[in-house]
Amino acid sequence: MSGEFAYIEWLRKRTPTHPRVLIGPGDDCAALAPGTRPLLVTTDMLMDGTDFLLAEVDPRRIGRKAMAVNLSDIAAMAGVPIAAVVSVALPQITNARKLAEELYLGMREMADRFQVPIVGGDTNSWDGKLVISVTLFGEATERGSVRRNGAKPGDWLYVTGPLGGSILGRHLDFMPRIAEALALHEAVDLDAMIDISDGLSADLHHILEESGCGATLDADAIPIHPDAILRSQSSGRPPLEHALTDGEDFELIFAVSPEQIHRVPSQYHRIGVCTPSGYTILEGTTPRPLTPRGWIHPLS
Amino acid sequence: MSGEFAYIEWLRKRTPTHPRVLIGPGDDCAALAPGTRPLLVTTDMLMDGTDFLLAEVDPRRIGRKAMAVNLSDIAAMAGVPIAAVVSVALPQITNARKLAEELYLGMREMADRFQVPIVGGDTNSWDGKLVISVTLFGEATERGSVRRNGAKPGDWLYVTGPLGGSILGRHLDFMPRIAEALALHEAVDLDAMIDISDGLSADLHHILEESGCGATLDADAIPIHPDAILRSQSSGRPPLEHALTDGEDFELIFAVSPEQIHRVPSQYHRIGVCTPSGYTILEGTTPRPLTPRGWIHPLS
Repeated sequence: MSGEFAYIEWLRKRTPTHPRVLIGPGDDCAALAPGTRPLLVTTDMLMDGTDFLLAEVDPRRIGRKAMAVNLSDIAAMAGVPIAAVVSVALPQITNARKLAEELYLGMREMADRFQVPIVGGDTNSWDGKLVISVTLFGEATERGSVRRNGAKPGDWLYVTGPLGGSILGRHLDFMPRIAEALALHEAVDLDAMIDISDGLSADLHHILEESGCGATLDADAIPIHPDAILRSQSSGRPPLEHALTDGEDFELIFAVSPEQIHRVPSQYHRIGVCTPSGYTILEGTTPRPLTPRGWIHPLS
Repeated sequence: MSGEFAYIEWLRKRTPTHPRVLIGPGDDCAALAPGTRPLLVTTDMLMDGTDFLLAEVDPRRIGRKAMAVNLSDIAAMAGVPIAAVVSVALPQITNARKLAEELYLGMREMADRFQVPIVGGDTNSWDGKLVISVTLFGEATERGSVRRNGAKPGDWLYVTGPLGGSILGRHLDFMPRIAEALALHEAVDLDAMIDISDGLSADLHHILEESGCGATLDADAIPIHPDAILRSQSSGRPPLEHALTDGEDFELIFAVSPEQIHRVPSQYHRIGVCTPSGYTILEGTTPRPLTPRGWIHPLS
């Protein structure tokens, strides 16, 4: 780890002590006290023009999103977040230092909600656009972590909240479902879980592929966010399509066996059921094939 | 973690099993078995045009460097590397998939030398230049990790190899001093250590600042790499200046008390001594003040 020295000092002063942090920012590595449970690791990179528009958005919101998308991955495994490291490539603008500080404060704002210290990083400047890469560590609970691959035919499928239209702003301001995931994992045997980054239809498909099963969704049961209706007015596509494919909702999809469903809190939305094969959505009584389509990654 | 799905599959097939890896690429998080010793964490971001020139360099060398600079940070703490995660922002070129694969193979080539599995990542494409961010985990040995802050007046200062002119190619092709650091840490009580990324004079200054002492270097004792002499011919600056300030040598600087120096292997170069204060270099018998100058970070 390297980076500009005065900025490292500024970071250091703002890094609170934390029982797990043996060495914080300012050495070649950070050091964390070892835990007794499996260490979860996730990393996500956000780029100006793809994941946010620096010209239009308060850098604190960008910082919050950079941290929150990683927290969402820990939530998807029902893990407890522990600590983060952050790398940035800053554009060569006159107030780059201010930008770096605002990004950091945004990341800290989100991280602080989950008692996650930022223990190190690498701050760079270059002739390109802003890039932020966060790596987050967490720990499985004593109940283990929840994978994508445990869904079984007959399992009921749920989402934690309404979907679609996140591009109107929620993709920057969502709250990662850490608390919800931990409470669920405590109360219910979760067979599989994933967070919605690519869109319901694409991310549920990841669960199905990994689990080797299919699913039938109930169109009427899919919770549609008011933003999906707003988007629909400008796109001309039905709100349901936005809920299925928009992505960056960062709600959780989870699968629960029928014997366990009475333990699922009533605020969650049962959207369908796992089947031996196939991938369809019922609109009324008419099944329509679903494609694993969502946010199209440019490399696909 | 997300990214393009076929590429994730490609990665998965190339990720060897490893006793510490409970969950590898392809879920929301990777999971590592907990260790008993402190977890070291470092992260470094490399950018096209700053850390390498994609137009001129084989992507495998870029991949190797991206992994090696992180390994060098683990070496600087005398740690054992354990696992890595990788994020990339790929330029939108026609053969981006091939580029991603070559980068990965370069990273793997370097990581494999130290039995480090790449357990996850985030692959993106954007309208900017190539950015690679690696986060590496390691573990302290039973002798703990070596900090920057333990040097004391009277300590002798060493470097592991000749310095200067790395821009001629070594900055891409160096071997991180993991094995050397572990052997040293086993044989000698190391009071402080750092790797040379910013240049001898800047990085030694980090040790001095953290340790609250000064140093006097012996100009005749500083090992000058043949590349520094080559650079000198075109720059007109003395080879010694290149050795002091060029950076990206990725050799180690370490401090050892006089009682311990007989244990330091003879191939290492004793370049000076720690003093209560000041920062100078002796050329013959003439002391010249040293500045903590090296690679100038744009934010300085």
